[in-house]
Amino acid sequence: MLIGSIETGGTKFVVAVGSGNGEVKQKLTIPTTTPEETMPLVHQFFRQFNLEAIGVGSFGPIDVNQQSPLYGYITSTPKLPWQNFNFVGALKEKHEVPIAWTTDVNAAGFAEYKLGNAKGTESCLYLTIGTGIGGSFIQNGEILNAYSHPEMGHLLVRRHLDDDFEGLCPNHNDCLEGMASGLAVEKRWGKKGFKLIDNEKVWEIEAFYIAQALINYTLTLRPERIVLGGGIMKQKQIFSLVRGQFKELLGNYIEVPNLEQYIQPVGLHNEAGIIGGLLLAERELMKSTVIY
Amino acid sequence: MLIGSIETGGTKFVVAVGSGNGEVKQKLTIPTTTPEETMPLVHQFFRQFNLEAIGVGSFGPIDVNQQSPLYGYITSTPKLPWQNFNFVGALKEKHEVPIAWTTDVNAAGFAEYKLGNAKGTESCLYLTIGTGIGGSFIQNGEILNAYSHPEMGHLLVRRHLDDDFEGLCPNHNDCLEGMASGLAVEKRWGKKGFKLIDNEKVWEIEAFYIAQALINYTLTLRPERIVLGGGIMKQKQIFSLVRGQFKELLGNYIEVPNLEQYIQPVGLHNEAGIIGGLLLAERELMKSTVIY
Repeated sequence: MLIGSIETGGTKFVVAVGSGNGEVKQKLTIPTTTPEETMPLVHQFFRQFNLEAIGVGSFGPIDVNQQSPLYGYITSTPKLPWQNFNFVGALKEKHEVPIAWTTDVNAAGFAEYKLGNAKGTESCLYLTIGTGIGGSFIQNGEILNAYSHPEMGHLLVRRHLDDDFEGLCPNHNDCLEGMASGLAVEKRWGKKGFKLIDNEKVWEIEAFYIAQALINYTLTLRPERIVLGGGIMKQKQIFSLVRGQFKELLGNYIEVPNLEQYIQPVGLHNEAGIIGGLLLAERELMKSTVIY
Repeated sequence: MLIGSIETGGTKFVVAVGSGNGEVKQKLTIPTTTPEETMPLVHQFFRQFNLEAIGVGSFGPIDVNQQSPLYGYITSTPKLPWQNFNFVGALKEKHEVPIAWTTDVNAAGFAEYKLGNAKGTESCLYLTIGTGIGGSFIQNGEILNAYSHPEMGHLLVRRHLDDDFEGLCPNHNDCLEGMASGLAVEKRWGKKGFKLIDNEKVWEIEAFYIAQALINYTLTLRPERIVLGGGIMKQKQIFSLVRGQFKELLGNYIEVPNLEQYIQPVGLHNEAGIIGGLLLAERELMKSTVIY
């Protein structure tokens, strides 16, 4: 069985083919420019293979509501050439196979849940803290998508008392993403995160925002596992700080698993999105071939 | 078909019998004292009927994890005589019928979803703001319970700039419940909420905390409908304030339904918990009689 997977990002698309169990056999990186330029390169890559399904993890916001006339569209993205682009429609025109359509964060979370550091759990919160911040929640094999997909990165947070950074979210200024994304760290301190490894204050403040968000997700969703990925979480020293501040903020109120187990780094690293696309495409194929 | 329902509260139990479609036929109020005193009165009431199933919406925290050895227990409640009480076990000893076991908030949310002001939606957040604050989320007919049931009332919130109340949550001081529960309003202003109707500042501050929490639940869960109940929400003037502050805090970031539709009062009033118990018991009965 050959399956296609697409992970779309602000600067590049990754396209891959693989097997149903998430194994990547071949992949290619394509620059993200305009649909007119980028999509033909996607089609060209996929045309080499006899694919049975395609999975897409896209930057958002996207329409994931199957009842909506805009299902399959990228909607109000700041990446202007992609605004209101019918992504699933464009794929279906060239490839007559079942297509799984979700956000990049949902795809990566699904891969961590199935094959990464949440494997074996019944529910998982996945949070990626990079240029932006996004989250997904999977329970009993289902990705949480109600009225639309989560936008957990924009949680309203309390400020750290020593932090006078104004925040950089264009919609909310000092929401989680505005205060704790990779871009926020860079703007606050004047350097990228990986050049600030020895500055303890950077990571104490960063851990404060992340831990606070994890408390609120925990109280709302009660996941069995939290997996943290993205560029910021490559600073491994931050995990013990996040766990410490989480413990303090929780105030022993509810039972959570042992924090070393509960709050973990990603298992699949940069591959999670593309592997998630393969897994979701396989699931879509199974659904579409069920005999009722 | 006759079904039993129990709603347990800090001062009283309500027990009822009804039909499977949520219609209450007879009910009784019993004081909440100790399991030794209260439970025999529950059994005595139910013994009059030929029940096919019983649903319980209990104060928490409770163990709802069916894999846990403590499933069916009330766990670390401050109501000392009920700590570590095997509620489902006590019921099963006297009534050999399927038992649905969840929190009071989950039961009430389920009733609002099925028959109340979220009827017809696919997903609903229910929040009760009374003596305490609690929330539940239902999607596609399933109540969100992952590692355990949500504890949404304890969300960490930003302070209102004009508010110097220290908060009264024993675990987190100034979390949502610590700042915005009925008890917090009473302690901050020296009077119960219903005696403060004409004080605009009371409701502006209250709406600020509620709207902020609704933003964070919305970003995390993306419900199609929010239903707000509990004593505080009987002050109908607060709904337009909550909607107004919600709109401002959201910053036009994500699409939500029209706010008049999106944020609504309860439809079932004080009956939601007991009706939810009936509906959940009926569902439990259906599950237990499925032929595989």
